[in-house]
Amino acid sequence: MMQLKVIGVGAGDPDHVTIQAVKALNQVDVFFVLDKGEVKQELVDLRGEILQRFAPNLEYRVVVGQDPERDRASAAYVESVDDWRRRRADVCADLIAAELGEDQVGAFLVWGDPSLYDSTLAILDDILDRGELAFEIEVIPGISSVSALAARHRVGLNQVGRPIQITTGRRLAEKWPDDVDDVVVMLDAQTAFTAHTDQDAEIYWGAYLGTPDELLVAGKLSDVAAEITELRAEARNRKGWIMDTYLLRRNRR
Amino acid sequence: MMQLKVIGVGAGDPDHVTIQAVKALNQVDVFFVLDKGEVKQELVDLRGEILQRFAPNLEYRVVVGQDPERDRASAAYVESVDDWRRRRADVCADLIAAELGEDQVGAFLVWGDPSLYDSTLAILDDILDRGELAFEIEVIPGISSVSALAARHRVGLNQVGRPIQITTGRRLAEKWPDDVDDVVVMLDAQTAFTAHTDQDAEIYWGAYLGTPDELLVAGKLSDVAAEITELRAEARNRKGWIMDTYLLRRNRR
Repeated sequence: MMQLKVIGVGAGDPDHVTIQAVKALNQVDVFFVLDKGEVKQELVDLRGEILQRFAPNLEYRVVVGQDPERDRASAAYVESVDDWRRRRADVCADLIAAELGEDQVGAFLVWGDPSLYDSTLAILDDILDRGELAFEIEVIPGISSVSALAARHRVGLNQVGRPIQITTGRRLAEKWPDDVDDVVVMLDAQTAFTAHTDQDAEIYWGAYLGTPDELLVAGKLSDVAAEITELRAEARNRKGWIMDTYLLRRNRR
Repeated sequence: MMQLKVIGVGAGDPDHVTIQAVKALNQVDVFFVLDKGEVKQELVDLRGEILQRFAPNLEYRVVVGQDPERDRASAAYVESVDDWRRRRADVCADLIAAELGEDQVGAFLVWGDPSLYDSTLAILDDILDRGELAFEIEVIPGISSVSALAARHRVGLNQVGRPIQITTGRRLAEKWPDDVDDVVVMLDAQTAFTAHTDQDAEIYWGAYLGTPDELLVAGKLSDVAAEITELRAEARNRKGWIMDTYLLRRNRR
């Protein structure tokens, strides 16, 4: 049967790659890549560097599909993401059917950890549900940007016996989540932390984690929110893209 | 200045170790270990295996301190943990002062990821706050048991655009957290999921993740709760200890 590996390769530092991922990389015949319109050349280069360093003798093919456009104007966020995912599944199903031999191993490399705000597993499940293709899936966990952020700031994510919520910028902009003081935010294109500068909270922010361009800011939220907003806009403007995440820690009342 | 590395070594599979951790391990002069009364010989062996495999030529010392007893009978959970942590900091500060030379590198190996429900960083911060010892801290992120769990079940932790809460068994036993359908539970000694079998939810459970003894169960919570409870009790009885974690996924109403 065809095999598909979903391999977490860490948050940006090639040294985040695990021994398990190195072993998995070296078994791959075909790497599948969706070429996003907004593709970041630096991330493509970084992926190339990972393969060069950890699978230098591997003979493999890279198959690139065209990532469908997502309707970002839609107010119906979940529906528009679901629709986008279906169309990505169409693209991936065609690629797998055309390019992967019956006894071959295909792979998707995923930044961070495949279990956290990544759509690859959902896309593969969608393809399997259609019943036209059969393959085995193996998932290799990776260092998430959340773990990388905490490590760089040398902080724990939780306080003793307390919960952590991992959420999106979109949701944080609506409100601070109930019953949690420690909130990790991903996918925040809108600096949602600025809506909460009235809180007695610390922020631990990081962008381009693990790369030479890494940016880190930590401090009292009300003191550093403007600095982060400015730094983020400047970096995004200079590089053309940004990936960032942060921990908000509210002092217990 | 003295350096202390806090190195995440993954959830139990030696192959979870990252290239960054391998590099860090090979710079260490002294490994600090707190010998818990309930120390698991298998975990000690696993740590030895990691050093043997990834730092075979390293000359290092292992210094073992006596982990203080924790008052588990106390109703004041946070206070009893805080007190325990202070006493652990006392032990660690004495060990570091006695055993680590001025230009040497010490390390603590942490199962999973040091940012998630682990007290090592808080202990080191506590020691620094006392002002009697000075050292630099470096944190190496690791594959958490949460990432390992999701990988083995081949599921994402979040649903599209939705939050995830990571919490403790103690808190889940009190109530299902507000406003989240996807809940990861750690440190659950009391099978708190059994309090929520009335929910329309799936459970993805795992124990001894990444080890030869790994146990995995997934299914509708009301269908498999009893099976997990029984399997967990049997395994714990047989091996003398258990480490497990799970994801609860409630179907959206």
